[in-house]
Amino acid sequence: MALAELEQVSRNEEGIATALGILRQRFGERLLTGQSIREQHAHTTTYIPAQLPDAVFAAGDTQEVQEVVRICAEHRVPVIPFGTGTSLEGHVNAPGGGISIDLMGMNRILSVNAEDMDCTVEPGVTREDLNLHLRDTGLFFPIDPGANASLGGMAATRASGTNAVRYGTMRDNVVSLSAVMPDGRLIQTARRARKTSAGYDLTRLLVGAEGTLGVITALTLRLYGIPQAISGGVCPFPDVERACQAVITTIQMGVPVARIEFVNALAMKAINAYAGLDYSESPCLFLEFHGSEAGVKEQAETFGEIAAEFGGGPFLWTSVAEQRTKLWKARHNAYWACVALRPGARGLSTDVCVPISRLAECIVETEADIERSGLLATVLGHVGDGNFHVLVMMDMDDPKEVEAAEAFVARLNRRALSMDGTCTGEHGIGQGKMRFLEEELGEAVDVMRAVKQAIDPHGIMNPGKVVGARRI
Amino acid sequence: MALAELEQVSRNEEGIATALGILRQRFGERLLTGQSIREQHAHTTTYIPAQLPDAVFAAGDTQEVQEVVRICAEHRVPVIPFGTGTSLEGHVNAPGGGISIDLMGMNRILSVNAEDMDCTVEPGVTREDLNLHLRDTGLFFPIDPGANASLGGMAATRASGTNAVRYGTMRDNVVSLSAVMPDGRLIQTARRARKTSAGYDLTRLLVGAEGTLGVITALTLRLYGIPQAISGGVCPFPDVERACQAVITTIQMGVPVARIEFVNALAMKAINAYAGLDYSESPCLFLEFHGSEAGVKEQAETFGEIAAEFGGGPFLWTSVAEQRTKLWKARHNAYWACVALRPGARGLSTDVCVPISRLAECIVETEADIERSGLLATVLGHVGDGNFHVLVMMDMDDPKEVEAAEAFVARLNRRALSMDGTCTGEHGIGQGKMRFLEEELGEAVDVMRAVKQAIDPHGIMNPGKVVGARRI
Repeated sequence: MALAELEQVSRNEEGIATALGILRQRFGERLLTGQSIREQHAHTTTYIPAQLPDAVFAAGDTQEVQEVVRICAEHRVPVIPFGTGTSLEGHVNAPGGGISIDLMGMNRILSVNAEDMDCTVEPGVTREDLNLHLRDTGLFFPIDPGANASLGGMAATRASGTNAVRYGTMRDNVVSLSAVMPDGRLIQTARRARKTSAGYDLTRLLVGAEGTLGVITALTLRLYGIPQAISGGVCPFPDVERACQAVITTIQMGVPVARIEFVNALAMKAINAYAGLDYSESPCLFLEFHGSEAGVKEQAETFGEIAAEFGGGPFLWTSVAEQRTKLWKARHNAYWACVALRPGARGLSTDVCVPISRLAECIVETEADIERSGLLATVLGHVGDGNFHVLVMMDMDDPKEVEAAEAFVARLNRRALSMDGTCTGEHGIGQGKMRFLEEELGEAVDVMRAVKQAIDPHGIMNPGKVVGARRI
Repeated sequence: MALAELEQVSRNEEGIATALGILRQRFGERLLTGQSIREQHAHTTTYIPAQLPDAVFAAGDTQEVQEVVRICAEHRVPVIPFGTGTSLEGHVNAPGGGISIDLMGMNRILSVNAEDMDCTVEPGVTREDLNLHLRDTGLFFPIDPGANASLGGMAATRASGTNAVRYGTMRDNVVSLSAVMPDGRLIQTARRARKTSAGYDLTRLLVGAEGTLGVITALTLRLYGIPQAISGGVCPFPDVERACQAVITTIQMGVPVARIEFVNALAMKAINAYAGLDYSESPCLFLEFHGSEAGVKEQAETFGEIAAEFGGGPFLWTSVAEQRTKLWKARHNAYWACVALRPGARGLSTDVCVPISRLAECIVETEADIERSGLLATVLGHVGDGNFHVLVMMDMDDPKEVEAAEAFVARLNRRALSMDGTCTGEHGIGQGKMRFLEEELGEAVDVMRAVKQAIDPHGIMNPGKVVGARRI
């Protein structure tokens, strides 16, 4: 994506210089301005060019976040919240410069309430850290976007992943947030009750706002009991349509599947080659079931029957932990396996989500489009939700290839929109998908912009993303 | 609640007169201004005094809603969306007069997508209408707030009810909304994909906004497969604490209970007296399980074992439909049974919600408070979520009794807040709970007010509710 195509955010040179001076005075060497740390905090995992912040500040607590935001607010300087930097649409770029607030030092688990099945954590706690901490409680936090992302970042981008079909997304699993607003005020969006109808849902407004409305400084999350039993397996299908039909039937029958992942034929080939496995190199579904011993057996058997009805199978499943782990490792490593299809290539990951009745059609058309475009790309999907990813293996230094990939992504997004779908099921808008957001929701984007303007009147919070920095 | 205690909304007499003239010219006799129809559309099911709109207009379609809103916007006249009028906190009162838009004529089911397990309906469709329509599809819409409410109203108040513990609330089950905004523009908040991370979550912003940000004119809702089998039963406990401990353990163990309802001893007595039944007159849990034949049996048996551990039981359960229906009829009729405890009384229903670890304590303290206050009141709860109702049987014409009840409600709300709970789990803020919202969320209410001001700058949408009509 060329810089010129991104939303332009003008640099407030004077304000930035003043704020940097004040911050340096206040925090001394904790204000980092070296080139490499600034590069690390500008986004480099996408095809969007990096735009560096002027400084990085690693916040130690909420008060420090408030202090930095207040100084930035006073001098009209952009603030970019930063977690693990694993977002995919340029969310942490600094198009107008400013201060990147790194929140990974705020990584305390503040409380675990086993009876209430919730916990409160700082934003820099990663999902793996949290689950490690919860190990002995019999509880776990299910959302798994692949990367070991920070929970603050996962909330900010409304992340989901493989088991959203059973446990929902971050939207469903954040009970309450503490956030520093663009004027430096600290708010709490809700109490710790499981449900509430007290006022506007500010929790859901901040979840998915991608740091453009405030900086999340604490999160209360729902937890779940670790299932008594887990079974899982892989099932090949003769084609995409029949795999999708099996998914639809499984969900309609109320099988409470925990994960149901589509992997296309090329991705299966990559997985086999990468790890020396011998799965069928046809479209496959990877499944996982959570429940009682009897329950997961019943679920797996029911799915096996459904798959057979649609010409799929054999469905090989297991409830033995080591075998399951191996299975999901293959799925989790799919990204690296696919990238290895083309040595030296970088992976460009994009996602869309459509009503599940249109999923097969959307994937088939997309595979044909990949073929026509001469791109090397695989398709993987959280298909229980109608959400799938395309991973394009690219030479980022070849402008013609970048152009072809961008044109392909545009067609993919418009294809999803034409099927009443969304331009992103879980990656978010960032800088990369702003134009598709407009195409998707039309005048509703004006309402979003009015909300942005009301909460962040000077446009300092992560400008140039989602609904942009433009004034209404 | 005395009128003087409600948020005051000044009447714009000139604007109202002008708008009424224009609307009469445009819609003729369809603009209703009779006393009795206006009374029907002002809230009368609460202890909040009725405040009548100046006219009622029964909208036939979205364009008519837009037309009325545009006229009201131009002349700064309040618009109050109206469904079945079953809300409980003065949501449909017209403190500044204005036009009540009755949406019950917009009652078409626009589409049912069985493969996607969703449907799109107009706001005047009631939940019973929808489920009747879905009968032959094998699907159902689970949210059941008790009353046969309109789906638009249920979305506006973020309703839930008995089976939210399994299926979530309206927050979780609205995929997308069409809404007429305060300037008359029609927006759609999302596409029909199951999940999305495209921009701010306007769907969740409007769900629970109680008509203060716009008029909902269509809703896309999630549907679920009718469970293959359902079992249910009633289980008595020696006391509240042990009933609550059984609830906590059941949920922690991951039993996917569909309903788990607490009924206190006095309410059980009322239920027996009302319908000639002979349940144990101690604190009881009413339960329902959804799943496969084997699954519901396993769930019921597991619960029975848990109940016995806590000294509860016998847990009598059945999967025979007629017996279940009888059981739930008893629970559903609890309101009338309780009101019948005191002939001539009116029921004042209020709700709070606390973290489940505090639930027993909150209920026990509340029962003691009822006792001390000399009020006649029962406690019923959707305890899987930590949500419970108190139903006070009152003589609304006795000012001392009204005062005592209001003081009790205030103490109940503050008790819930002191336990990190919310002043309302499902009834909403309306006019009745505005002061508790401030106590609950503090400065976050300023952010809500900024959002209200941005979306409804003239404060015409359902003024005097939630965050009020005040300017920032």
